[in-house]
Amino acid sequence: MSVLTKKIYYHDTDCGGVVYYANYLKYFEEARTEYLREKGIDLKELSSKGILFVVRKVDIDYKAPARYADTLDISTEITRIKNVSLEFFQQVKRDGQILVSAKTVLVCINSEFQPHPMPQDIIENL
Amino acid sequence: MSVLTKKIYYHDTDCGGVVYYANYLKYFEEARTEYLREKGIDLKELSSKGILFVVRKVDIDYKAPARYADTLDISTEITRIKNVSLEFFQQVKRDGQILVSAKTVLVCINSEFQPHPMPQDIIENL
Amino acid sequence: MSVLTKKIYYHDTDCGGVVYYANYLKYFEEARTEYLREKGIDLKELSSKGILFVVRKVDIDYKAPARYADTLDISTEITRIKNVSLEFFQQVKRDGQILVSAKTVLVCINSEFQPHPMPQDIIENL
Amino acid sequence: MSVLTKKIYYHDTDCGGVVYYANYLKYFEEARTEYLREKGIDLKELSSKGILFVVRKVDIDYKAPARYADTLDISTEITRIKNVSLEFFQQVKRDGQILVSAKTVLVCINSEFQPHPMPQDIIENL
Repeated sequence: MSVLTKKIYYHDTDCGGVVYYANYLKYFEEARTEYLREKGIDLKELSSKGILFVVRKVDIDYKAPARYADTLDISTEITRIKNVSLEFFQQVKRDGQILVSAKTVLVCINSEFQPHPMPQDIIENL
Repeated sequence: MSVLTKKIYYHDTDCGGVVYYANYLKYFEEARTEYLREKGIDLKELSSKGILFVVRKVDIDYKAPARYADTLDISTEITRIKNVSLEFFQQVKRDGQILVSAKTVLVCINSEFQPHPMPQDIIENL
Repeated sequence: MSVLTKKIYYHDTDCGGVVYYANYLKYFEEARTEYLREKGIDLKELSSKGILFVVRKVDIDYKAPARYADTLDISTEITRIKNVSLEFFQQVKRDGQILVSAKTVLVCINSEFQPHPMPQDIIENL
Repeated sequence: MSVLTKKIYYHDTDCGGVVYYANYLKYFEEARTEYLREKGIDLKELSSKGILFVVRKVDIDYKAPARYADTLDISTEITRIKNVSLEFFQQVKRDGQILVSAKTVLVCINSEFQPHPMPQDIIENL
């Protein structure tokens, strides 16, 4: 499991006084990228070889709102590895309290946007 | 069912050449707002009375990517009405092709962020 | 002069209760795109020929804030045409009141991100 | 002078392959907030006392584009302190190269959105 720490600024929030619900998907992108980097997987390098990961599915639960100036911890772990897809489980916590959790499925594709088996070294690294 | 038409600009896309996955949640917010307005429900007026709707859950499927300069149709319908919550089903289409679909649960809350029964006239309008 | 009408949703605002200051640049992008389209200039088609316009400079004045559920009019006009650049003057108004105004310089570039003379038919259309 | 380091992810970019021009204003907000915090000025605490800073003016120059996976340094310094306003000069650099620079004027306002003299301790801290 990997944890990314993130501070909340005005641009993250909306006039309801809380973090806008779509913005958590940005934090989850950042946290997955850092998780993969820690495992030796560089998405930019892969993309230059024509291998991309795209999001196929997100199931997200909003339990409690984050607010301006909060410091959040975004945890990331992989819960399933298939031939062409990865399933992540991620949580947003503030001082240990779970605010948001999400299950995300990424699919490995080639430059024609077609599903493509993940390179063997990626599967081994994970 | 209600349909919102939406054009895609640079700010909607990412360097993968497609619409960024979090941005569909913005279009879904816009489309739900217009759907409710058509039913005579004004979220701003409700908010001034201390009644808010917050997103509790989103299950979203990405089937095919939208791109720069696309014109998208966002359809919205309500699939379940409970005492304190509403379930929406929404789809993003381009020329009739389904690109993205989502099920979203909204919860009615009061100004202390606690669940609150929906006003009776809202339930009747829907 | 061309005018784009735009409604404000939650995702446009921040927890200060007003439209977030960076978001006006998105509306200006949209309004410039529509202005150019009305003049017969299609940015997507140009981009497929390796001709792009990038923003070189923005001077923006914030006079009064826009808020949730506002309907805004974004006006766009061209104030200067040079060999490789265009200068736009744009205003955001609500019920005739000027909220924000901006002067923006766009530079015509080729696919190597180098300045490139604007195609002659573009200059004629403008 | 204060420097904030920032990594670029997909959500920062657009389909032109570079960071979207409005997003630099988000990084500048983050960097100003951290600059002020280092000077002992907490914007959240001030806001709870009815003292806010709003952006009145931004002049921004885009010299070269930032791209996906870049690590950027955002420098911030104050260039003018007046009774009700602050002027910042900020730069985005990558490996020492200046990509973007901006001059921003912030105005101190009260909860009625009217200009308000800055508290004396803020002026002293700066």
